[in-house]
This record gives sequence, C-alpha cells and structure tokens, in this order.
Amino acid sequence: MIASKSAEFVNQVVGAIREVVGPGPVALHEPSFDGNEWLYLKECLDSNYVSSVGKFVEQFELLLASYTGAKYAISVVNGTAALQIALKLAGVNSGEEVLLPALTFVATANAVSYLGAIPHFVESEESTLGIDVVKLREYLSGNTEEQSGLCTNKSTKRVIRALVPMHTFGHPSDLEQLLSIARDFNLVLVEDAAESLGSFYQGQHTGTFGLLGTLSFNGNKTITTGGGGAILTNDEALARRAKHLTTTAKIAHKWEFDHDEIGYNYRMPNINAALGCAQMEKLPGKISSKRELFKRYEKEFKLISGASIFEEPSNCQSNYWLQTLLLEDDNLDLRDYVLEASNKEGIMTRPAWKLMSNLSPYRNSPAMSLEGANSLYRRAINLPSSPVLSLGAR
Amino acid sequence: MIASKSAEFVNQVVGAIREVVGPGPVALHEPSFDGNEWLYLKECLDSNYVSSVGKFVEQFELLLASYTGAKYAISVVNGTAALQIALKLAGVNSGEEVLLPALTFVATANAVSYLGAIPHFVESEESTLGIDVVKLREYLSGNTEEQSGLCTNKSTKRVIRALVPMHTFGHPSDLEQLLSIARDFNLVLVEDAAESLGSFYQGQHTGTFGLLGTLSFNGNKTITTGGGGAILTNDEALARRAKHLTTTAKIAHKWEFDHDEIGYNYRMPNINAALGCAQMEKLPGKISSKRELFKRYEKEFKLISGASIFEEPSNCQSNYWLQTLLLEDDNLDLRDYVLEASNKEGIMTRPAWKLMSNLSPYRNSPAMSLEGANSLYRRAINLPSSPVLSLGAR
Repeated sequence: MIASKSAEFVNQVVGAIREVVGPGPVALHEPSFDGNEWLYLKECLDSNYVSSVGKFVEQFELLLASYTGAKYAISVVNGTAALQIALKLAGVNSGEEVLLPALTFVATANAVSYLGAIPHFVESEESTLGIDVVKLREYLSGNTEEQSGLCTNKSTKRVIRALVPMHTFGHPSDLEQLLSIARDFNLVLVEDAAESLGSFYQGQHTGTFGLLGTLSFNGNKTITTGGGGAILTNDEALARRAKHLTTTAKIAHKWEFDHDEIGYNYRMPNINAALGCAQMEKLPGKISSKRELFKRYEKEFKLISGASIFEEPSNCQSNYWLQTLLLEDDNLDLRDYVLEASNKEGIMTRPAWKLMSNLSPYRNSPAMSLEGANSLYRRAINLPSSPVLSLGAR
Repeated sequence: MIASKSAEFVNQVVGAIREVVGPGPVALHEPSFDGNEWLYLKECLDSNYVSSVGKFVEQFELLLASYTGAKYAISVVNGTAALQIALKLAGVNSGEEVLLPALTFVATANAVSYLGAIPHFVESEESTLGIDVVKLREYLSGNTEEQSGLCTNKSTKRVIRALVPMHTFGHPSDLEQLLSIARDFNLVLVEDAAESLGSFYQGQHTGTFGLLGTLSFNGNKTITTGGGGAILTNDEALARRAKHLTTTAKIAHKWEFDHDEIGYNYRMPNINAALGCAQMEKLPGKISSKRELFKRYEKEFKLISGASIFEEPSNCQSNYWLQTLLLEDDNLDLRDYVLEASNKEGIMTRPAWKLMSNLSPYRNSPAMSLEGANSLYRRAINLPSSPVLSLGAR
C-alpha cells in the first residue's frame, strides 16, 4: 500500500510526462520515415540489389564517416556484431578480461563472451551515467599489476585487455579520463557508442576516441536500418580487417572461394543500408528535436521536487537518445509505482537495465563495488523520447 | 596454351550456355521482386515497424512452416546464425567434433567453429553432390568407437556430436542413409538446407529430417530477404529455445531487462521479413521456372560430349538452385578455361567452393579421404540460374 504523499508524487510525475507527450498512447522511442526512405527502398527493388551487392552500403558508410569524423565506418548486421568484431580487432583473446560498466544493455557483455573473454564489471556515476573514472582508477591501482606490459588482474591472474565505456542513453562518458586510464593501465579503449550517434564530447563525436568504436541502428535508436550497426576507426589497417572479417574473410578473386581466417557473415544488406542513407539525411533534425524535447521535460520537472530530468554532462552535446528521469534517494522505492502508473496510462516508460552482475550468466564474473550503478538502476526511468514529441501535444 | 580440340570444347560449352541465357551480360542468380514486395515494405514504413516489432516476422515464420511442413520456423539474421544456433541446440559443446562435407560454403564450418567445436570433413559423391553415405559409414566404423553412448573419434579422443549434411546447389543428400548413420553412430542430425528451400526428398521438404534444419535467404538464394535465415524444427521446446536464444535470451517482463543465459542478437528485422513474405508468395513459380531452366540446359548439353548438366537425384524434387555443369574426367583441366571464357563474355559462372580442408583456417581439422569431393570441386561449374532465364533469350 502506497502512502498518500507518495501517491501524490507518482501522480505528479505521470502528469508531467503527460503534459509533455500529449494525449493517447505513446511509445518509448519511435522511428520516423519522412525522408527518402521510400525512394531508396524502391531503388533497391527496381535494381534487384537488396543484399550483398548494391551502392547503399558504401554510401551509408561514407555518410557515417563524414558525420562522425571517423576516417572509416564499416556497416554490419547489428551493434552486438559490431562490438564483437571491434573487440576481436582490439586484440581481446579468449580467457582475458574486458572492463565494462555493469549498467549497460546485455549486448556489451555478450560481445565479450562470444570471444571467450570474461566481462569485468565497473562502477558508474551520476554526472555522466557512465563509468566512474575516479573509482575505476583507484580500483585498478589496487587490484591490478603490470606484467610484461599488460594489465593483470591480481586476483584472477588474467590479462585485462580492454576498457569499454558505454555512453548511457546517449550521454558521453568522461572520455578524457577514460583515455588517461587506458594509457596508464595498458588497456585498449573500445567505445560502445550504440546509443550515442549524434553525441559529442568536447566537440568530437563519441565512438571516435578509442582505437575502435561501435554504433547501433536498431529500431528504437536515433536512426534505424531495421537492424544494423557499424564499426568506427581511424586506423586504415583495422578498417580493412573489419571489412574482411565481417564478410566471411573471403580473399578477393574473380571466382574462387578462398577464406584466409574464420570470418563472420555480418555484412549489412543493401536494403537496410538504403534505409540508413535516408535516415542519415534527417539525423540533424532528429537530434535537434530530441534536444528540444529535453527542454520541454526539464521545464515540467522543474515544478516537481523529488525527481529531475538528466541533463547532458558539461562540455558535451548529447543526442538525448532516451530522456531519463532520476528519482531522488527519498523516492527510489517509488520507481515501480511510476512505471506501473505511466504504462497503465499508455505512456511507455522503463527502468534502466538490470546490472550485468545480477544476471544469471554473469553472476560469477569479476566486478568492482557497484553502489553507484545500483543506485542509478534503482532511480532511473526512461521516458518517451521520439523526436516527434518535441512538437508538443499531438 | 590450350590445344585446338580443347578450345573447341570450351567454345561449345560457352555457346550452349549462351543459347540458353540469351544475349548480354547474365548474373549467376538474380532475385526478382514482381509480387507484393513493394506493398509490404510500404506497410512497414507507414506503420513505423521496421525492426523488432511488427507482424511480418511472425507471418514469414508461418509461411515457412506451412511450406516446408516443419512444425516451427524461427527466422534469424542469416543462414550462418541459423546453423550456429541449431548446432548449439543440438547439444554441440566446445571441444567436440561435427561431421560436415568438405565440399560446402565456409559458413557450414564457421558455424561449428563459433561454438568452439571442430569441423571434421567428410567425403562427397556424384549422384547427390552431397555426403558419400557408403564411405562415411565405412569410415565411422573404422575410426570411431562408442563410449558411454557417444561417438568418439579414436584418433583425437574427442566426442563427435553431430552430422551436418548440406544439400549442395539445392539437391537433396541421401537423407534416408544419413538418418540411419546418425542413428547407428549416436550422432544428432542437423541439416544445412541453406540452398534447398523448395527441394524435397521422397516428398518431404529438406531441412525437416534432422532434429533441426536451417535455411538461408541471402541475395543469391531462391528467395531473398536481403540477408536472412531460419531454423526449422518439429520440436516445440527446441523452437521455443531457438526464439529465446536468438532474441538475447530476454525473459518476458513488462519492463525489466533480465536475461537468463548468454543469448544472441539474431532476430530478423521486420523489414527483411516483409520482403520474405512477398517472396514466399512467389516461391512455387520461381521453383517451376528453375526446373524449366534445367530442361533447357539439359537439352543443349545433350548435344555436347565431355560435360553434362547435373540432374536431381532419384526420388527427389530439387529447387535447382544453381544449375551445375559437370565436366568429364578427360576435361577437368579445362574448368578454368570455361570459367575464363564465359565470364569474359559477361556470362557469370563459377566453380564449386574450395574444399574446407584446403582453407588455411581448417587445414589441420580432421578429415576423411576426400577424392570424390576433390573430383567434384575440379569438375563442377555453376551456370546462370535465375528463374527469369527459363523464359529463354531475352
């Protein structure tokens, strides 16, 4: 039974969301296809090029590279595949550990597991929703040692090969400090930028700070290709290997089928890339709508005490992929009431992901103390975030 | 320098192909989109359902199940992913061996490798282009022994868990004998039916004989979804697990993200399934065109001695995915001349795949004697096979 003061808070929160999103049922994040999607899909069908041949894959990769400022973009079948290949190219070997936030979507951890490597879960903090760089540095200082130029976990004796920040709900992690930690502890930095296409840290696009970065174009992302992802890198040799590995490692030949390593069938089909090209043309407009939407939420929630809308970290420009309400500590037990009441009203909201360290397949993976991540998990609620909602009540 | 008699043979072969395919450049296998593709793609865009939500995925799965007679079909991102998951569900563990033909596309072997298992290459024979069941039985009798109810490789001491026939160029392998071998040697039968949608063995669809079977809808296949694949099974529990594993092993919940094992992001996007639904409606027509095309090639090549068009095995109805010319032993050194001359003329032809046992990543994998497979590799040439070619010179 919920106390009347709490019930009032829940009503206020749902009312504020309703004020922003207008009447009727509202999705968490809907794509929109009001550009050249139609034209480009028709071009695919008319030319018979829907699959591995066709111009849209290359065009989409050029658009991604140009927008993000990465020298190379390699499109693949989804964000999980992108991260798996990026980690492989970063030199992650079976039996090694990879540092990643416990507060992330399961794909980040799974991509590590596919390589036979072990995810090692790291603390998050509230100013970025990303990795807690202060606590991580302290943790690595105490719990790892350098052996032959490699970072080694003192307790498991395993090499820790890479550090994978994830830019939560689109907000850039503290990349300057993360780069510094990676340098100091001999870790390869690979960015999981699945959620942050259109997000910049000190004017530079997320996903371009590490040796490699990865994007996702799933249906609920800022732009969508149905399903899709991409690998970003500035290293020409890595880019070439990424393309090779994701296209079955086939050696170019006029007719012979020869493959020089165990590759993957991860190429993005032309029809999905066609959708991506049209979506990329509309990306700047989508981002500015999403940033407008933040302001509308912010205005409403300024009137309510006990919860606030998360604002982009300083020195960052975020895509505001998923708008995030953070309950104050006093109200964290009300999270499920807010979720229940809003969803019952047809307003789709959801909590953050269960911490990786609490999922049964990852319960025994190494982890640092995760109080900050756990607090964020208990206090965060994602709100409807479609660009179209910036226009106000429909 | 090619002898004049040989040059004459090469000219005859290219002339016969040209007679069938008509003038101009001709692809090896082109899709066609003359059904409801347009309508269904538009429905995706108009409804905003292009990704993981939408009706076409379920509809495509029902169409596949209904057409193949499998109780369940689970659509995924491509044929390689389908086979990886099917093998996992068949109980293939890391460090175990899986029997598969050396004469196959690299995806069959890669799917085994992704599980940490080891491909063990098997001989092929000429009446089906598939596994040589006589030699395989003899080989297993001599080289394996039963230990605790499992087939064990006497020389590597590893468990051999599964047998994976691949229905080459669409032609059904000898499924009756393969089932019998699987039974006698305690192997799980999983069919790689990537090439054989529309091919029947004794009236039953390929891919439905084993515990699980897999299909592919890549751009060059009989029907295409851009990129895509499916798992077939008659076992309800396996079907449920296949869906669970290919959708990140997420436990159904109104908002919580909980995953009970290491799953995969292998779901087919709705937009690709939409294409698949339209393509499935046209499948019977495509198959009958391809069977007509066979007759036209057969007629032309009856006039030429030294090579013949491969005809479906007895008791089978094949989709004739890729029409296949088999050179006689006297002419096998002319294969590359035929490939060169035809491709130079704009007629796309290609050889069979290099044997898996000759690829650098698989050179050290166990293999039985592969004379038959090697002979087929040296003698087979795939000819243009698009359904539209059945109409004759364009």
